[in-house]
Amino acid sequence: MIPLDRVPQSVRLVEVGPRDGLQNEPEQVPTEVKVAFVEALADAGLGWIEVGSFVRPDRVPQMADTEEVFRRLRPREGVTYVALVPNLRGLERAASCGVRAVAVFTAATDAFAQANLGTTVEASLRTYREVVGRAREAGMLVRGYVSVAWWCPYSGRADPQRVRAVALELLDMGCADVGVADTVGAATPREVQELLALLLRDIPPERVGVHFHDTRGTGVANVLASLQMGISTVDASAGGLGGCPFAPGALGNVATEDVVYMLHGMGVHTGVDLEKLRSASRLLETSLARRLPSRYLQAGPLPTR
Amino acid sequence: MIPLDRVPQSVRLVEVGPRDGLQNEPEQVPTEVKVAFVEALADAGLGWIEVGSFVRPDRVPQMADTEEVFRRLRPREGVTYVALVPNLRGLERAASCGVRAVAVFTAATDAFAQANLGTTVEASLRTYREVVGRAREAGMLVRGYVSVAWWCPYSGRADPQRVRAVALELLDMGCADVGVADTVGAATPREVQELLALLLRDIPPERVGVHFHDTRGTGVANVLASLQMGISTVDASAGGLGGCPFAPGALGNVATEDVVYMLHGMGVHTGVDLEKLRSASRLLETSLARRLPSRYLQAGPLPTR
Repeated sequence: MIPLDRVPQSVRLVEVGPRDGLQNEPEQVPTEVKVAFVEALADAGLGWIEVGSFVRPDRVPQMADTEEVFRRLRPREGVTYVALVPNLRGLERAASCGVRAVAVFTAATDAFAQANLGTTVEASLRTYREVVGRAREAGMLVRGYVSVAWWCPYSGRADPQRVRAVALELLDMGCADVGVADTVGAATPREVQELLALLLRDIPPERVGVHFHDTRGTGVANVLASLQMGISTVDASAGGLGGCPFAPGALGNVATEDVVYMLHGMGVHTGVDLEKLRSASRLLETSLARRLPSRYLQAGPLPTR
Repeated sequence: MIPLDRVPQSVRLVEVGPRDGLQNEPEQVPTEVKVAFVEALADAGLGWIEVGSFVRPDRVPQMADTEEVFRRLRPREGVTYVALVPNLRGLERAASCGVRAVAVFTAATDAFAQANLGTTVEASLRTYREVVGRAREAGMLVRGYVSVAWWCPYSGRADPQRVRAVALELLDMGCADVGVADTVGAATPREVQELLALLLRDIPPERVGVHFHDTRGTGVANVLASLQMGISTVDASAGGLGGCPFAPGALGNVATEDVVYMLHGMGVHTGVDLEKLRSASRLLETSLARRLPSRYLQAGPLPTR
């Protein structure tokens, strides 16, 4: 009767704030703040943290110190630090500082791939086949992403069959799982469930992750819709980091606090201590000198709950 | 397979911004701005608008001009303007300015009723039996609300059986429908669906409404969870009005824009023109001299959607 039957008992959260969040900040966050932030996230119980990306420093200066951040992080049992790598050069940089898990991302549309990767989807997949192969040879775990899996800012609705084909190819080349991303925060729950239903025909749910932005208010509802399809890997960003400071409430990744609050209220295990997570986000708020958009972060617990 | 089967094809939105939103503003909004706001909401296609409340002006000065607002509104085909009335005195004031629909609210806990109504739940229901009876005799439509239907800030978890009993009594005394309210914004989707499942054993879904606050980020997800139970009456507040200006992102009602965006993306009819709704919210933003927390309001449509 109640359509929550397939909601998993436990969810693996992938914290993407230090990478997807901070790369959108207009100001460079100091390296020591990044390290303290990541350590605080690990203290809060987050077991998967996307720490940074090995992209061109001239293109994304916010990520220029990713090597240094990785070098300063102390390894922890049960915590996997992930780096985004766009190519072989990025993989080499990741390997040079001891990174054990990397993520590659392509897109569901050529227009988005061209704008963000400077190439087509097919060409990016050829590159990744080599990147993923080498990463696996080096003993790394690799995650794959399909950006604009629902809506593309250049070409509109993404073709679900193409998303499926790209996801299958990422898995085939050796990715442990594949995340479908609503990069521009435009998807709604029915679209989410329809795409997931298609993917889950061929792919077991534990190999599919979801990555939502809360740009238009549907982020948490889309997480719920995904859980209902049996998905148990969910990206989120501490504080809803990634929001544009000039448009309050807009643009950010779905906030880890809001997702964890919902999950715990539904009896789903995450391993996260919500108050410690809020402390981690507060660190960033102090450095950025502004409030982050996560609603739970600002409101805190109901004292009688 | 997809747990959206019972989502209704059409949803009746009850816009509560002018009442539940503005009553929480620290500053009094000028009467002419309120009137322009309500007219703009009606222009946007909202067919049910909670315009104000007939409570004691010394207790809620923000609502002191409710008579004047009602007098200035021009009647429109297809638009019902609702007033909150706490007692017979309020009903008389409503009748004096031609109000055709009123709402009464009690609570699921005595602690909340005592704090907000100065009486117990049972005593409030005795009062309302007379209020609702007289309103019906005067040809008015009456809606009933159960506040803190999931969580109470004073006594914790509300007893679902008590919510059910109060809802049934409100319907029995003549309310057309009954709204269950997450007044403090603490509910999560499983709790929402469990309470609704209980209520829907005795009450047809068209006589049950939901009223969520997005205090902890679960508001839109809770709307989704309600739709999945067949609920088709949803309260929301333009711009997410009701947020505290001193805690960005916190405390507001679920934003009408965010709910409408989700509904339209799911193919659910609302009759609302989203861009006109944003214009209505912009009116308020200008008057309040701050941004409202609705994410869709700030982000706007994806140009390629």
